[in-house]
Amino acid sequence: MAEQWETKITSVKTNEIRVRGYRIDELMGKLTFSQAIYLLFTGEIPGKEVSDLLDAIFISSIDHGVKPPSALAARNAVSTGAPINAAVASGILCINDFHGGAIYNAMGVIKNAIERAGTPEKIETTAQEVVSEWINSKKHMPGVGHRIHTNDPRTARLFELAEKAGISADGVRMMQSISRAFADQGKPLPINVDGGIAAILVDLNIPQDLANAFFMIARVPGLCAQAYEEKMTQPRMRNIQLDSHVYTGAEDRSIDDRGE
Amino acid sequence: MAEQWETKITSVKTNEIRVRGYRIDELMGKLTFSQAIYLLFTGEIPGKEVSDLLDAIFISSIDHGVKPPSALAARNAVSTGAPINAAVASGILCINDFHGGAIYNAMGVIKNAIERAGTPEKIETTAQEVVSEWINSKKHMPGVGHRIHTNDPRTARLFELAEKAGISADGVRMMQSISRAFADQGKPLPINVDGGIAAILVDLNIPQDLANAFFMIARVPGLCAQAYEEKMTQPRMRNIQLDSHVYTGAEDRSIDDRGE
Amino acid sequence: MAEQWETKITSVKTNEIRVRGYRIDELMGKLTFSQAIYLLFTGEIPGKEVSDLLDAIFISSIDHGVKPPSALAARNAVSTGAPINAAVASGILCINDFHGGAIYNAMGVIKNAIERAGTPEKIETTAQEVVSEWINSKKHMPGVGHRIHTNDPRTARLFELAEKAGISADGVRMMQSISRAFADQGKPLPINVDGGIAAILVDLNIPQDLANAFFMIARVPGLCAQAYEEKMTQPRMRNIQLDSHVYTGAEDRSIDDRGE
Amino acid sequence: MAEQWETKITSVKTNEIRVRGYRIDELMGKLTFSQAIYLLFTGEIPGKEVSDLLDAIFISSIDHGVKPPSALAARNAVSTGAPINAAVASGILCINDFHGGAIYNAMGVIKNAIERAGTPEKIETTAQEVVSEWINSKKHMPGVGHRIHTNDPRTARLFELAEKAGISADGVRMMQSISRAFADQGKPLPINVDGGIAAILVDLNIPQDLANAFFMIARVPGLCAQAYEEKMTQPRMRNIQLDSHVYTGAEDRSIDDRGE
Repeated sequence: MAEQWETKITSVKTNEIRVRGYRIDELMGKLTFSQAIYLLFTGEIPGKEVSDLLDAIFISSIDHGVKPPSALAARNAVSTGAPINAAVASGILCINDFHGGAIYNAMGVIKNAIERAGTPEKIETTAQEVVSEWINSKKHMPGVGHRIHTNDPRTARLFELAEKAGISADGVRMMQSISRAFADQGKPLPINVDGGIAAILVDLNIPQDLANAFFMIARVPGLCAQAYEEKMTQPRMRNIQLDSHVYTGAEDRSIDDRGE
Repeated sequence: MAEQWETKITSVKTNEIRVRGYRIDELMGKLTFSQAIYLLFTGEIPGKEVSDLLDAIFISSIDHGVKPPSALAARNAVSTGAPINAAVASGILCINDFHGGAIYNAMGVIKNAIERAGTPEKIETTAQEVVSEWINSKKHMPGVGHRIHTNDPRTARLFELAEKAGISADGVRMMQSISRAFADQGKPLPINVDGGIAAILVDLNIPQDLANAFFMIARVPGLCAQAYEEKMTQPRMRNIQLDSHVYTGAEDRSIDDRGE
Repeated sequence: MAEQWETKITSVKTNEIRVRGYRIDELMGKLTFSQAIYLLFTGEIPGKEVSDLLDAIFISSIDHGVKPPSALAARNAVSTGAPINAAVASGILCINDFHGGAIYNAMGVIKNAIERAGTPEKIETTAQEVVSEWINSKKHMPGVGHRIHTNDPRTARLFELAEKAGISADGVRMMQSISRAFADQGKPLPINVDGGIAAILVDLNIPQDLANAFFMIARVPGLCAQAYEEKMTQPRMRNIQLDSHVYTGAEDRSIDDRGE
Repeated sequence: MAEQWETKITSVKTNEIRVRGYRIDELMGKLTFSQAIYLLFTGEIPGKEVSDLLDAIFISSIDHGVKPPSALAARNAVSTGAPINAAVASGILCINDFHGGAIYNAMGVIKNAIERAGTPEKIETTAQEVVSEWINSKKHMPGVGHRIHTNDPRTARLFELAEKAGISADGVRMMQSISRAFADQGKPLPINVDGGIAAILVDLNIPQDLANAFFMIARVPGLCAQAYEEKMTQPRMRNIQLDSHVYTGAEDRSIDDRGE
């Protein structure tokens, strides 16, 4: 008889599935997907503020067009005849330190800096020190800078929503202080969406080892959409030239424009 | 100069990302994750009924404990020292015809049967014919039967919610008729969650090639949770004995029990 | 007590590993890698003719530069910070019907055509019929045609070696007849390396389900080399423009030029 | 016009493929697969001694039965209906620090220790120091110890062949000294096959970043064989109980027993 081992996530009996103690068929119809994800990870059902913020986090990273390496990976696999799950798996294998995976590293930077500051009053001066050290190291700090955006609209919106929801705390403040410190020290760099998500996950007390899970969950729909479009519209075994793509989808529009 | 190729999903300019024409920072805070997924796939923002039903679909398949092959794959990879993205990719590579991927095949069965029936009045008799042919073929029809459940609670709840939302149509009716036909012909088999989702996706006019995307999106959080728990609580390179696990998480509880 | 299940490949006891009955430490030093692969798959140690031909098959597909989708996948993953195993896994996920995986489909075409011919005398006329049907179907026959090569030098060499080794039989003859039939019917198409390997695997009685294994085994070293070069020489998160690469390696040389 | 970037591995022109400067169709029939792998990685064709040793390295890790996590991953994926390339990719995603990937880490231990020793005369005393430090750290040193074997027959044979070929140098000597030091310090641990391969790769001057490539190349045939057997002989969606397998293949035999 093999030794027993424990799980605390989901119990399955004949005709009864419980996630963190709740019957899954009770959760269906009562929670949003984002709430269920939070429950799965933490064991607790989040309130509306956290739930709305999670929706915003997932939407912020749901897709970024054809050029991210994960989108290229998914399209490239489809182009060889791969089924959609293999295309998505290829995309997920590109969620690493330099793409999406920066959330994990940015959380580390933020948490270390908060610990070093000790008290909220010292966040600003600690951020200046930390940034100075990164600039001297000539390394690239995770969570800041972007290949395309000089002012990442997703981060600004995330911080606005976190503030409104009363969730912003030391994590968001440290990240914002770090950004100011870069500008002060002559290296203005935007907080990218990875850095923005990292700051909020710190304030939500999400374990660092789950950081990249948030990016993967957010981006899988995007990878599915990219893979599906590739399959439906492009010839097989094409030489995918990312710089030659052109967007021909829906014109610019706003939710508020929709007639009621 | 390489030839231009088209995408209709997401446009990316400096400091402006638009998904299906909408600024992503406008969608953040206004949509749920499920609504954004539907927008990404179809180009339209769904109303509340569809949106709630999508949440229920995603929650229905968010996790099923340690025993599905995809959960074993994720845990097994972690056990060798794999990072979480490789563990999730391994899990996704198990979403095939016999696990999760049945949604695609079940949609095919349902759509073919609806076309064969021609009119709603003939759904019942067509279902009887279709089931008779499957029984004679001695093959396993996708969407019915389960290794563990004799009456899948997720399917019942999905159909209840679809009915309440006014979304049930020929897809759900055909699937239910097929189930009744199995019972009539002496082979009572439950509609499994793949079959339930397939029926609703037919009624939502989702393209069949996106079928398995729904399962992958739903299950990635579960794979992350399984991988994270394995990493945090189990020794490396263990011989994972699925039959020896024991659930030691939160006790049975109900959302309604929560004090306000 | 779970039911026992059987394996016929490798037995492992403390300090004794046997592959197909042979102690692995006995095989080491006595066989080549290709011989061991054949033993693993078939249970028998091949003679020198088969062994040399297997070496030629594996070398024929060991690498094809930076442009195959599998090489792009591996480099693209490395570019995001993926470890080498994830890069290779990404590459392998591109071995499908339109890249490498054609060996499986080409074996199917050849075996069906041989069966249809019935006797070796009818190979030539059957090939003409088969090709005529493919041309009429306007589909692309697996095993013929190439994006780059009009006369694939690997196939010619494979067939030459197979002939010399006395291994060529109906498989190679059918593939060659098919090629002639394409030319006769006004559609000259080279037998590509997938088609060449397929023909020889038919003559070696390798099961069709192992077809793509041969391509994967051959190409994994190439994927490792591509991934390693990307890591050592290229910046992270670069936009990989396949058409902009230039070969700057060793100059043209021949084994025979080497002084002794 | 995008900037040019360089590759030194393979050049491809119409009807001419050159690996490291040699026409691939010239290499076919003149080299073994192992020689071609070495050429691909290093740019040089190895002599017979190195070539034979590479064959032994690849054979040493070609398969280890059904129980390694990579074999379980491949079988588990097949069990859900995965194609063989997805099964192999799943297996490769398990080549990490605790399975196969130990070659990389063991090379690091050996190279550091050789550097610390400075001269061959100090290898023995340095090994004693290094082992003492590892024992004090209570961490597991890569390259020693095995779940099953107390005296890994593959390592003994590898070292014997390396000695005979005149390739053994500081790498092998350091690894052997480390093993003796463990015994001297009351913790007898076998050098496992990862440690044995690592020592030889150090003596062959293979870059450490290619370490795990050797294991992957070696094991892919094994993963293919495991996946193929699973597909051909086992029911789908079975609960794979590793402890319940039984070997029913060829009986114990020896190459020398074969009648001529």
